[in-house]
Amino acid sequence: MKNWKADLDFEVPAGFRWAAASGSIKKPGRLDVGLFTADTTATAAATFTQNDFRAAPVLVSQQTLQETGSRISGVVVNSGCANAATGAEGSANASSMAATAQNASGREAPLLVCSTGTIGVQLPMDRVTPAIADAAAKLSGSREAFNEFAQSILTTDTCEKIAWASFVADGKTVRILGCAKGSGMMYPRMATLLAFVATDADIAPDLLRKSFSNAVELSLNCMTIDGDTSTNDTAIILASGKSGANVTAGSDTLRLFDQKLLEVMQSLARQLARDGEGATKLIEINVQGAADFTAARHIGREIANSNLVKTAIYGRDANWGRICCAIGNAGAGVDTAKVQIKLGDIVLFKENAPLPLDEEAALKVLSEEFIPIEARVGSGPGSATVWTCDLTDKYIEINGSYRT
Amino acid sequence: MKNWKADLDFEVPAGFRWAAASGSIKKPGRLDVGLFTADTTATAAATFTQNDFRAAPVLVSQQTLQETGSRISGVVVNSGCANAATGAEGSANASSMAATAQNASGREAPLLVCSTGTIGVQLPMDRVTPAIADAAAKLSGSREAFNEFAQSILTTDTCEKIAWASFVADGKTVRILGCAKGSGMMYPRMATLLAFVATDADIAPDLLRKSFSNAVELSLNCMTIDGDTSTNDTAIILASGKSGANVTAGSDTLRLFDQKLLEVMQSLARQLARDGEGATKLIEINVQGAADFTAARHIGREIANSNLVKTAIYGRDANWGRICCAIGNAGAGVDTAKVQIKLGDIVLFKENAPLPLDEEAALKVLSEEFIPIEARVGSGPGSATVWTCDLTDKYIEINGSYRT
Repeated sequence: MKNWKADLDFEVPAGFRWAAASGSIKKPGRLDVGLFTADTTATAAATFTQNDFRAAPVLVSQQTLQETGSRISGVVVNSGCANAATGAEGSANASSMAATAQNASGREAPLLVCSTGTIGVQLPMDRVTPAIADAAAKLSGSREAFNEFAQSILTTDTCEKIAWASFVADGKTVRILGCAKGSGMMYPRMATLLAFVATDADIAPDLLRKSFSNAVELSLNCMTIDGDTSTNDTAIILASGKSGANVTAGSDTLRLFDQKLLEVMQSLARQLARDGEGATKLIEINVQGAADFTAARHIGREIANSNLVKTAIYGRDANWGRICCAIGNAGAGVDTAKVQIKLGDIVLFKENAPLPLDEEAALKVLSEEFIPIEARVGSGPGSATVWTCDLTDKYIEINGSYRT
Repeated sequence: MKNWKADLDFEVPAGFRWAAASGSIKKPGRLDVGLFTADTTATAAATFTQNDFRAAPVLVSQQTLQETGSRISGVVVNSGCANAATGAEGSANASSMAATAQNASGREAPLLVCSTGTIGVQLPMDRVTPAIADAAAKLSGSREAFNEFAQSILTTDTCEKIAWASFVADGKTVRILGCAKGSGMMYPRMATLLAFVATDADIAPDLLRKSFSNAVELSLNCMTIDGDTSTNDTAIILASGKSGANVTAGSDTLRLFDQKLLEVMQSLARQLARDGEGATKLIEINVQGAADFTAARHIGREIANSNLVKTAIYGRDANWGRICCAIGNAGAGVDTAKVQIKLGDIVLFKENAPLPLDEEAALKVLSEEFIPIEARVGSGPGSATVWTCDLTDKYIEINGSYRT
């Protein structure tokens, strides 16, 4: 799918408020503290990083979810400091952020907490704490408030990532609205950097968890920017129930909900990949004919994580040999005689031999902002779509000087 | 170890000749066809790529080794074209190169064949065949001939990689002389791009195979430039026996041979990493306290393959959080409280918390050409040293325009 722009024409689900303020963590005066609350306690589901160095806010949020049985009243988040690898002081700061947010917003149930930014630096709590109070004072269910929240979570991102969908069940409109951030250190293996979704569906915790996990698996977990899984990856959905539409196991409403949630999450995944650090192109890799989805995605990730494939696409070079090389590196035992590689509609390689390359046609495809690649790797039933971006000198510039 | 310069002060092992010629594959007139022969049939051992897309010369050489019981008279090699993903025509061309080389050099036993360069392009056999004959006509056991051979195998490399060692056993001098190439698409998982070693030790095929595999495992297989394993990776050693020194199982001579061979191979590995595409620094990552060597190397590779670690070092930024992140991504279940990270002699992180960073001291270490990093990940007995290089805008420039 080609769309990778933030959908700014969204409707806000019932029962939520957002706000953002500045703790001057990133730069003086920039929005870097966000608050996302449910008017009454909501049902939550979340997925977190698999990195052994899980950040303090990840550990705190996981514990909160367990203790509350996933009944949560919101999320407080800061950008500019990851609060990861920060020891006991970091843990205390993460708990303090959640407590401050709960008190300031007067909510009954606890809030989850997220951080993103530089690893190994302590939070400036003397500025974070008042900023949380500032945000709580202006919580609002308006579109502007949501937009500010979506801005406040960004780091090296160049734009907000926003996606939404709605459907009608039993005459009631259900809305799903999400935003995300992440531009580098992006290789979500169980979740992505930060993604927040609000829905007014009325859905039980177990069902929400299952729906959200499935959607994350086919969206954020099919995306990579640079193969590095962050210490802070967190994706959270809160369901307020305020639409009045009941989503129950086995129902048509659940099928609709799952479909629309997947649309929202895949849109966020594309927006994230397109805005990868220094990126100029969105690359969509569709793998067909693998043993199963997992095998297909593994091969897709191997292609998507190849610096050589990514630099070739940046250079508008139809160097498909590098795609062969990446496929061969997946360790999937691919029968090379069955491999077929397409760039847009152009078949580059099949039956173990190169085809005459129409350089002009290839250059035309590679000059677009959206680069579709299809890799057929056998005759199995497994397929997967993986999104990534090109690798440019701008990525080196950003990451050679991020902290300094 | 700090040394990563080619050792040009080498001695040539007895019983070998080298030569190079131009087939104008890379650029008109540049040396790109090399010949490396044993005066009488030699004992060979080799390791090859694990990529599913093994190149035609890899498949041909593997078959030759099997058919001859590793009794080989040399190697013919070209650079500028990988002869990979080239179908039946490519296979015929690889076999033809080996046959031409055997005829032209008048050798009794077959030669192995190697290629390196762009994937998916057919060899210009009308130029390659006469170039092999040119090379055969000037085969010589001189140092100059070896130097020319070492040059002829280069692609995006900026310099030759040469290492040698010798020892005396029973009053006889044994020499081990190797050269290698490889600058991008470098993540040797069973061998490296191309490495050729000659020794005049007298050693049986099984013993040579074991010694060489061990040495490759601790040298080329501990090195990565960009995490891409090439389709053509090949490392070959030929033993002429002409020193008269017999290397037998369980002997002190074997222990000496293994030690010196490892020195040569690790020197080549460091030279390769330092000359990675666009690199300005050699990074040595020493992992301590893992469960075993394999686990330690896996963590070392995860750090070495992190674009974020590599760009930070390029930017002389002591961003050790990215090293934590990479360690956590290895999936080794590391206990983060036991992790300690050092840059040179500076402890950056221990006991789950950052230490006050002396930025000036860190900048001093990071301004050197050789960057030593130590990661202690637990209290296990496993350790490993992995070599890589920094990731720079020059890498993007080289790979955004390699084929065009």
